[in-house]
Amino acid sequence: MELSHPLIKDGWFREESEEFFPGQAMRLRVEKILHAERSKFQDVLVFKSTDFGNVLVLDGIIQVTERDEFAYQEMITHVPMFAHPSPKKVLVIGGGDGGVLREVLKHDCVEKATLVEIDESVINLSRKYLPKMSHALDHEKVQVVLADGFEFLKNTAAKHESEKYDIIITDSSDPEGPAEAFFQKQYFELLYNALNANGMVISMASENIWLNIDKLKTLKDICSQVFSVTECCYCTIPTYTSGQIALMCCSKNPQLKVSVPHRHESRDRESELFRYYNNAIHGASFVLPRWAADKLN
Amino acid sequence: MELSHPLIKDGWFREESEEFFPGQAMRLRVEKILHAERSKFQDVLVFKSTDFGNVLVLDGIIQVTERDEFAYQEMITHVPMFAHPSPKKVLVIGGGDGGVLREVLKHDCVEKATLVEIDESVINLSRKYLPKMSHALDHEKVQVVLADGFEFLKNTAAKHESEKYDIIITDSSDPEGPAEAFFQKQYFELLYNALNANGMVISMASENIWLNIDKLKTLKDICSQVFSVTECCYCTIPTYTSGQIALMCCSKNPQLKVSVPHRHESRDRESELFRYYNNAIHGASFVLPRWAADKLN
Repeated sequence: MELSHPLIKDGWFREESEEFFPGQAMRLRVEKILHAERSKFQDVLVFKSTDFGNVLVLDGIIQVTERDEFAYQEMITHVPMFAHPSPKKVLVIGGGDGGVLREVLKHDCVEKATLVEIDESVINLSRKYLPKMSHALDHEKVQVVLADGFEFLKNTAAKHESEKYDIIITDSSDPEGPAEAFFQKQYFELLYNALNANGMVISMASENIWLNIDKLKTLKDICSQVFSVTECCYCTIPTYTSGQIALMCCSKNPQLKVSVPHRHESRDRESELFRYYNNAIHGASFVLPRWAADKLN
Repeated sequence: MELSHPLIKDGWFREESEEFFPGQAMRLRVEKILHAERSKFQDVLVFKSTDFGNVLVLDGIIQVTERDEFAYQEMITHVPMFAHPSPKKVLVIGGGDGGVLREVLKHDCVEKATLVEIDESVINLSRKYLPKMSHALDHEKVQVVLADGFEFLKNTAAKHESEKYDIIITDSSDPEGPAEAFFQKQYFELLYNALNANGMVISMASENIWLNIDKLKTLKDICSQVFSVTECCYCTIPTYTSGQIALMCCSKNPQLKVSVPHRHESRDRESELFRYYNNAIHGASFVLPRWAADKLN
């Protein structure tokens, strides 16, 4: 039986949101629908596109395409990882596709990487259709926990000193749906308590300076109430709305800024390991256009 | 009579190009079609969008929307203008909407700005529907020439020493259509000959690193055959394909790099004058992701 999905018509997938980006829409041409279901938590769609490889869509919003996912995965990972002097324990909230884990594991100093994903469907579908990301789920340093990230932090990480982290990466979907709690002050307090003294967090902001800078400012203000250093960077990525996404970076130690790399690879190693990240773009990704810098800083 | 246009259907404008960005499409919601014609040179469409202000479309490709045009206009102008020690004479090829002129005139050192636009329709429609850009066309320092930029350079600028420029900005449409010649070596030779000793040029690349980096590399190689210093920068802008556009920057004097600002305004003045440009983003806009930097540099 041929699969169908309400957002795919005449061979094109459409991404629209009257609430979050009214009046603009993105379309990707579909070669084949690979999977469509209503999981326990959200609407899940996987299709093969004609020009962007396989595409994972949650609740109607593009999460990853094989063509450009590396931009987001590398920047949300390597910016805090290189800003930290020596990250050994890393927690990823969300990120069931495995892309962030793949990047975390490029740092040999990492001893353990824990992934907390709420939706097993995302993991299973990624294993099947996004193998270049999901292979990292099976790495010996990785522990995968099927749980709500908020509850995990409350019940585990914040309670046991031995369960604290150097880096926590929130790689969630948008604030409506299962990820809603990840944009509240209480969540950032849980993150703070789950960090070691030099710990850093980075969160997908689900926004960018072009779409709704007021909402970005609100998120930054929430973070600033909890962390003494909060900075905003971005990466360009064509299949996210407006072609970019903002990342909110917080540091527990006021002497350590996420915008400043403390370690770096040689240029040759950069070329081997990365496609997007390099030492120069680390700092440059925190340089915002005038109006955005004035608003947020 | 209500206007119509083949690219507007069910109240949405669609931007698609099987040749230049296959498999992806951008849509903007239309409030009202303001003008649609086949000019002497190209298909011209102006519509009022629901969320991006008035929009100018040439040959099916979005040229400016009132909501985000400042990003492109400011960066294509202020990057070379601030890199130059003292730009007095400026030439704009294309740019009939007047947006680049508006930015050029923010520099008090400018004595004369010449605009060479081939299509009078663009100028007339911009006067009517894009007043925040086109008002600059009437400034006392501005001379508007209705001509083909290539012919203008060949017949005027390159022949008379008194008709040389400090900065030349190519603000054209895409290479297919009337702007085709602006992406050839002979054009950059004409630009070179029309420059003073410290002169600089910047050109809309009609590409970006995500879309077709091979074509961007080809353009850079062409420029490098003519100029001793060629660098590539970008600005983010949501209504251009992939959310960004590359700008190719060349300098006649090998001691002067377009990536390095030689002058700057105070932060207060920056806030008054600019929405996108600031001193920090000048250099940051030349920092490219690893794969793009390796390919282009």
